[in-house]
Amino acid sequence: MRIHNFNAGPAALPTTVLERAQQELMDYRGSGMSIMEHSHRGKEYDEVHHAALSLLREVLAVPSTHHVLLLSGGGHTQFALVPMHFLTAGKSADYVITGGWSEKAFDEAKSVGSVREAANTKPFTRIPAASELSFDAKAAYVHTTSNNTLEGTQWQAFPDTGAVPHICDMSSDFLWRPTPVDRFALIYAAAQKNVGPSGLTVVVVRKDFIAGAGAHLPPSLRYETYAKAESLYNTPPTFAIYMMRLVLEWTKQHGGLAGMEARNEKKAAALYRAIDAAPHFYRCPVEPAARSRMNVVFRLPSEALEERFLSEAKAAGLVGMKGHRSVGGMRVSLYNPVEPASVDVLVAFMDAFAKKNA
Amino acid sequence: MRIHNFNAGPAALPTTVLERAQQELMDYRGSGMSIMEHSHRGKEYDEVHHAALSLLREVLAVPSTHHVLLLSGGGHTQFALVPMHFLTAGKSADYVITGGWSEKAFDEAKSVGSVREAANTKPFTRIPAASELSFDAKAAYVHTTSNNTLEGTQWQAFPDTGAVPHICDMSSDFLWRPTPVDRFALIYAAAQKNVGPSGLTVVVVRKDFIAGAGAHLPPSLRYETYAKAESLYNTPPTFAIYMMRLVLEWTKQHGGLAGMEARNEKKAAALYRAIDAAPHFYRCPVEPAARSRMNVVFRLPSEALEERFLSEAKAAGLVGMKGHRSVGGMRVSLYNPVEPASVDVLVAFMDAFAKKNA
Repeated sequence: MRIHNFNAGPAALPTTVLERAQQELMDYRGSGMSIMEHSHRGKEYDEVHHAALSLLREVLAVPSTHHVLLLSGGGHTQFALVPMHFLTAGKSADYVITGGWSEKAFDEAKSVGSVREAANTKPFTRIPAASELSFDAKAAYVHTTSNNTLEGTQWQAFPDTGAVPHICDMSSDFLWRPTPVDRFALIYAAAQKNVGPSGLTVVVVRKDFIAGAGAHLPPSLRYETYAKAESLYNTPPTFAIYMMRLVLEWTKQHGGLAGMEARNEKKAAALYRAIDAAPHFYRCPVEPAARSRMNVVFRLPSEALEERFLSEAKAAGLVGMKGHRSVGGMRVSLYNPVEPASVDVLVAFMDAFAKKNA
Repeated sequence: MRIHNFNAGPAALPTTVLERAQQELMDYRGSGMSIMEHSHRGKEYDEVHHAALSLLREVLAVPSTHHVLLLSGGGHTQFALVPMHFLTAGKSADYVITGGWSEKAFDEAKSVGSVREAANTKPFTRIPAASELSFDAKAAYVHTTSNNTLEGTQWQAFPDTGAVPHICDMSSDFLWRPTPVDRFALIYAAAQKNVGPSGLTVVVVRKDFIAGAGAHLPPSLRYETYAKAESLYNTPPTFAIYMMRLVLEWTKQHGGLAGMEARNEKKAAALYRAIDAAPHFYRCPVEPAARSRMNVVFRLPSEALEERFLSEAKAAGLVGMKGHRSVGGMRVSLYNPVEPASVDVLVAFMDAFAKKNA
């Protein structure tokens, strides 16, 4: 039996995608071997690779001004590679600190060059207003985090960075709804939320922004190397890219990003409604306007009740809701593949739990 | 039907490992979700992760002086990270160039600091004799490539680098037989040959060698970061590590590295015997003492015959033998999972093909 999985990442994958992967795991489409055993230079994998790239372009509506790169090393590696490419001598970069992951990105950038905080919303229960953002017009770039997985906040509209290139870590809400890609110089996202399994990182980057950038770096660390080789400079994580292709096919079949947005808004609305319906029992610490549709965080009246909640939920087949160790409480992740029916089961459980324990 | 797969990497995986992965793909051991959907901080994945680490220590007999790190980015990323950590200012590093992959490692290191060739055996049909190696006693390290995938040569005994740390790219023959780990300061290997699918890189490194090394690098690029966090600093490629664990269990069940050595020597001997039995038809360009047990390269009398060989072999269920585009001819990869029975089928095919076309 498939459980109701609200993990924060790695996270739930569509059941039909896993079924397809299982079905062809020993013999990829009559080739007599697993897709994992195919050469990355052979025609079977080549077709998977380019299908994944073009599906991503199609689903995300990536303009021809931007490359799509398939890399590895997760978001953390991008925390380092971004400043290593763009934080050139004599320049400074602006970081908007909206959560624990922004802080990590900021810390890694510090080891590369000069950085400053364009805003800091600690303790991170909200997204800064436009008036709070003090951008340096000469900055090498502005770095934002579109969704704050730990704290359950999300930008609902992106800030205007003017002529300064906007770089966004979209790891935890990439592909959650239509996105104006042309407004970003660089978007990066670890795959293990809405795109596929862990071990794959997607970078969408303006072609003129990376042209010549990082010329001082070894070729294997340069974005341009992968752009020129269509992400086949070296052996890519082939199975993760195969899974990404299947997830993108599923995304397309379910209405693309407009379909995802409707699906995600509906799931999030149901869950926030359940929280708000029992205000003396459940409490969401996030400002209403900043509430994330991807990660819903809430507290119960006591840690003892939180533990009981998790344990009874698990017995009811609802798992993955323990908040990050740095934050505590509950965190329910509602990435694209999470079924609305799973949220219905959770909401019913929450209603009953509140009645029983209030 | 499973085909006879002689791919150079990604390459064949043990059939029983794939069967197990297939069987538990939708529901990892009763947890109600795929191992890909488990949190990397949860107890199910944690057990997989630490089992993979301890199996590797056990199978490879890694001494307590060394860390085992599970990274990503393939061998190419190590080409860059090695000099970025150890090629400190004022120092030079020695590279022993024995094939196309050594050349790539050398080229990436050049962009970091001062490097020199301690030997160069171009056109790479042999391994240098001890007398040809001119090591700089003050070098930051010596870099070697244990097996040259493209050219089909392999070190049968490792050179003595004296007091200079020896760093070895073992990507294409890691775990092929027992290895004196204590003689190496650092070993790296992309997984997609003898260890698992692509997307995972194993680094075995002396603890005192990385202590404090690369202090100028962003944390996410430092070996020490992953050593301290037992390779759970960030989200690792969980599915690839799960597969590595299954492959290591299979390795152990098949006699460990002594078992692999016997299995690999037998497969390679059968194939080289078939080549040598038709000396006017098949020709191995490699010096006999340097012949690789992992990648067997050979030529036929003409390119037309080579094409016919590949096409008739494919029809007989034997695939993955086309040599690398930079070398041409045939390349048969005999990594650990390749079954001796597959080599028997290939040898019978080669005997018949030579008789028919000589």
